[in-house]
Amino acid sequence: MTEKGKISCDECVNELMPVARKVGFDTAWDRYEAQLPQCGFGLLGVCCKLCWKGPCRVNPLGDGPDRGVCGADVHTIVARNLIRGIAAGAAAHSDHGRHIAKTLLEISEGHAPDYTIKDENKLYKAAEKVNVSVQGKSVNQIAKEVAKATLEDFSRQDEGIPCVWLDKTVPASRMEKLSRAGVAPHNIDAVVADIMARTHVGTDADPVNLLLAGLKAALADYTGMYLATELSDALFGTPQPVVTAANLGVIKENAVNIAVNGHNPLLSEFICDVALELKDEAVKAGATEGINIIGVCCTGNEVLMRRGIPTATNYLSQELPMLTGAVDAMVVDVQCIMPSLGKLQECFHTELITTMNSCKIPGAKHIEFHAATAAESARKIVRMGIEAYKRRDPGKVNIPQRSSTVAGGFSAEAIITALEGLDAQDPLKPLVDNIVNGNIQGVTLFAGCNTTKVTQDMAYITIAKELAKKNVLLLATGCGAGAFAKAGLMTMEATESFAGESLKAVLTAIGKAAGLSGPLPLVLHMGSCVDNTRAVSLATALANKIGVDLDKLPVVASAPECMSEKAVAIGTWAVTLGFPTHLGVVPQVLGSSVVTDVLTNKLKDITGGYFIVETDPTAAAAKLYNAIKQRRQELGI
Amino acid sequence: MTEKGKISCDECVNELMPVARKVGFDTAWDRYEAQLPQCGFGLLGVCCKLCWKGPCRVNPLGDGPDRGVCGADVHTIVARNLIRGIAAGAAAHSDHGRHIAKTLLEISEGHAPDYTIKDENKLYKAAEKVNVSVQGKSVNQIAKEVAKATLEDFSRQDEGIPCVWLDKTVPASRMEKLSRAGVAPHNIDAVVADIMARTHVGTDADPVNLLLAGLKAALADYTGMYLATELSDALFGTPQPVVTAANLGVIKENAVNIAVNGHNPLLSEFICDVALELKDEAVKAGATEGINIIGVCCTGNEVLMRRGIPTATNYLSQELPMLTGAVDAMVVDVQCIMPSLGKLQECFHTELITTMNSCKIPGAKHIEFHAATAAESARKIVRMGIEAYKRRDPGKVNIPQRSSTVAGGFSAEAIITALEGLDAQDPLKPLVDNIVNGNIQGVTLFAGCNTTKVTQDMAYITIAKELAKKNVLLLATGCGAGAFAKAGLMTMEATESFAGESLKAVLTAIGKAAGLSGPLPLVLHMGSCVDNTRAVSLATALANKIGVDLDKLPVVASAPECMSEKAVAIGTWAVTLGFPTHLGVVPQVLGSSVVTDVLTNKLKDITGGYFIVETDPTAAAAKLYNAIKQRRQELGI
Repeated sequence: MTEKGKISCDECVNELMPVARKVGFDTAWDRYEAQLPQCGFGLLGVCCKLCWKGPCRVNPLGDGPDRGVCGADVHTIVARNLIRGIAAGAAAHSDHGRHIAKTLLEISEGHAPDYTIKDENKLYKAAEKVNVSVQGKSVNQIAKEVAKATLEDFSRQDEGIPCVWLDKTVPASRMEKLSRAGVAPHNIDAVVADIMARTHVGTDADPVNLLLAGLKAALADYTGMYLATELSDALFGTPQPVVTAANLGVIKENAVNIAVNGHNPLLSEFICDVALELKDEAVKAGATEGINIIGVCCTGNEVLMRRGIPTATNYLSQELPMLTGAVDAMVVDVQCIMPSLGKLQECFHTELITTMNSCKIPGAKHIEFHAATAAESARKIVRMGIEAYKRRDPGKVNIPQRSSTVAGGFSAEAIITALEGLDAQDPLKPLVDNIVNGNIQGVTLFAGCNTTKVTQDMAYITIAKELAKKNVLLLATGCGAGAFAKAGLMTMEATESFAGESLKAVLTAIGKAAGLSGPLPLVLHMGSCVDNTRAVSLATALANKIGVDLDKLPVVASAPECMSEKAVAIGTWAVTLGFPTHLGVVPQVLGSSVVTDVLTNKLKDITGGYFIVETDPTAAAAKLYNAIKQRRQELGI
Repeated sequence: MTEKGKISCDECVNELMPVARKVGFDTAWDRYEAQLPQCGFGLLGVCCKLCWKGPCRVNPLGDGPDRGVCGADVHTIVARNLIRGIAAGAAAHSDHGRHIAKTLLEISEGHAPDYTIKDENKLYKAAEKVNVSVQGKSVNQIAKEVAKATLEDFSRQDEGIPCVWLDKTVPASRMEKLSRAGVAPHNIDAVVADIMARTHVGTDADPVNLLLAGLKAALADYTGMYLATELSDALFGTPQPVVTAANLGVIKENAVNIAVNGHNPLLSEFICDVALELKDEAVKAGATEGINIIGVCCTGNEVLMRRGIPTATNYLSQELPMLTGAVDAMVVDVQCIMPSLGKLQECFHTELITTMNSCKIPGAKHIEFHAATAAESARKIVRMGIEAYKRRDPGKVNIPQRSSTVAGGFSAEAIITALEGLDAQDPLKPLVDNIVNGNIQGVTLFAGCNTTKVTQDMAYITIAKELAKKNVLLLATGCGAGAFAKAGLMTMEATESFAGESLKAVLTAIGKAAGLSGPLPLVLHMGSCVDNTRAVSLATALANKIGVDLDKLPVVASAPECMSEKAVAIGTWAVTLGFPTHLGVVPQVLGSSVVTDVLTNKLKDITGGYFIVETDPTAAAAKLYNAIKQRRQELGI
């Protein structure tokens, strides 16, 4: 539930609401209010629509039927609904990953001439992970073999061989545990299809068996995400620290403003290139400041991380940029793009442009993106923005003058590089030492979405400040990163203000050794939501160094505003990898005591991880801190 | 809605209801009554649970919000829900298909010693379809190559190459049309995953684009079904005409009765073998008539078609066999197995045994089936049945003395063989001639499930009799076949009683020429629901012979009791292949005028097929007949 009267911590939201009223547009918050009260059966996960004998619903409180028409009880129903969500998340992330892998293959075969492989070192690292030898081979040859080995994770038929992008990216002891539990996926698509098959009417009815299949699908999600991130880095560069800004103030009145929204860097990278190339055309059209690319949601995070492109906003407020009247084009790719934008663009001069076959929106213009003609598509789109700029109505321009500085770009590699300032030979040592001595109590990764069910960004900010005070190192991705960016918590000033003394000292030491003028930011921006695996790669490096499995580390995850099925999948692989994982929104499983107990309790025995459900941010911070303390105690530190 | 006071046309249902009451068990019909009234939003398809900002619901009548929180309108919501169902159907069927293909591979590699390839001719035909040359190769080598070529349909990454099991099994003109429309799948699993990805929050919002993706997934379903049937035939034999019986009277008081329930023949074939082998053990246990295998649902259809095993009942009444108190074991594999059986077995001595990892049921014992140890598992299961028999309580035995004769086994090959009696050189000619001259007006395939929403079996029987009278040739699969089998419509007597004069003459001529004592049965049993592709292979042969595409043939489909997501997928590929397809249950799409219009109307322009929704059986028969007449007119016959 949103805090009374406060829908967002982002003041731009309040500032632009009157504009929405004026143009007669209902925002996500308005639409949420209109949906209240929401269906109680749905909220508990006890509504089943999996066959046309239904829909059925079971009241877990005992008032009404205790089974659906087929005989499925509440535990079966809840488990089936949950794992279909995990499958959807895995499918979405891995669709993104496959797109990148296929593009790498096209490049290696000379069919995508606009692309280059910008980070050959990262490609070599990827080659190592997928067992491709690099000796004596050209970059193109390596790229081809890496792409093909990656696509094996989408096509392997032997169920005994785990996905290579999982196998090599978690500690060996974790991999053994996952294989023993039968939850290591062999093929992402096959595992997604398995979930759909076993949730078909009259198939799997055992809630625990269903949940185990869900863990496997969640690891398929992890696999698809991991390879998406690593290959994106190879193509477009591994993020390094970069300073930029966040919030609607990054929109420039005197520029052609083009927003990139969605998740995939394949086109947006070219939009950024072309923006430089076509600057003169924009100036000629009257935009004295040229072309200004701004990021929204996770495509925004992608270009922020690699290029320092400023970010306009995160998921829930993605309607705001258009409401400023100064966005000339919004280019979208896939996932978390509100269909409402199709209606909103009718109220403004903005060109809404869809680019992927799998994501069309009524009201948008569609320019299908193909790797073979990436730059050409980008040029077309940017020119549509320039043309639209000419139609911009100055009377409708309302740009809130708010933005915060953001120091982003903290890939695992960037963090290691920073640590090298303290110990060039053994960069992880200072981090381990500081964890062991308690200067850093533990690590929290903030991930996940925004949702109308809570005050936007608030829980992120509250929990982060609480944990920082207690000397917990903070990482963030996705819309969490967006929240922190807008709130000014990705700055050295925030470290000065909010970090506990010992954490502050460590961040300052690292920052200075790395040549910065002060400490690292309070929250390290690790990228888009698909980049959550960056945090795992850091955790795995730590675990391997200490010689323990992931579930022994004082590392926790928090998704205070989890909303999408991708978030459900991410949260599930986080617990499957062994991390205590906080959800700030009640997951739609409470109808089943069995499912709830497995997820919050019994899972510990299998994976070491578990869910912590807590909607109060301060209480959540305390629970996360306790989980960290418990891990420390178990480690004897 | 069920006809007042009549839940089934199957008298066994009424006969055993008091037993259910007596043991305190709620049947599917009771559970359905308890669920009423069902959620109106769900019934219209306008409830969205795809993210945790929801659940949302849109009232298509305008009373309430017109969009979900994300901005999805009713058309987006309905289309997304529908195509997820299609994806689940495709996943389920193709999981079954992959299982068969993998088993074929295991056999060819010597890892499944209990199996033999019983129908080498069918294997050669499969080889031809998947472009495997057979010359100079051993059966095992061919089997291996066919299996691997088949598994390509689950792993191919090149989107430009269609699934081979689709490509070669429809007329070339149809394949061109499908490719042009962009709906030809390249990889079954990838297409299922694509549906899950594009229906993720904030991805595809265009209802027509979503539906096109749904057509592709439906063709993936077709592909998975087709290969399942053809390879099952290669493994276990292509069905040939066989006479057996249907309904609960097939249960024998003095035998160990073992029911096989579900869909997959991989284990049930061995159960049948082992039943013969272990007869003496049963007799020793006191079962003077040995072991009696009976079929339920589509595993029942599989063993009926290939072995003449009697069928006990179809989907909706699958709880009845246990209620007789004389079923000693029920062995289940996958799909359409009521979870309620787990509870029901507590009331009787029956052993409920699950056999597949993807289908466990609380209350059942699990004996995991592996191809490598198929016979061993079968022996264990049959012996469990024998042991259970010893615990059978004679006081609880209530076997309704009702059964009907069934002449089944009409694979496409069996029909062609029968036609060879009339024209050995050109067996399709008499069929074409009789269609052209109007003795046979057209062909109707009955497919699909049972549902509590109508009187069980009634619409099947009513529509069949209406169409038979008008000289329409009738084919049936799945629970439709079950309905006709129980109702005695798969007999020559039914042909005598219900066929129109010219149809009767043709069926008699074929029957006599084939050496039968009378006409072919009124309804030809083509197998389980996965075998619907048998009808397509016949239709494709006809189309190729006449030189037209499938959408020109006077061939229609009817699913009077469609219920499962598999049925949704089948119905969708039927219209995608060009067939007018009747649904006797209102599909859960009416909330969207756009989706409804595309499915019942606009699709004609793309594929030639369309849905006919009609819940009144007599009116449905008239509409199906009109569709046939229209096709005849268009053909000028």
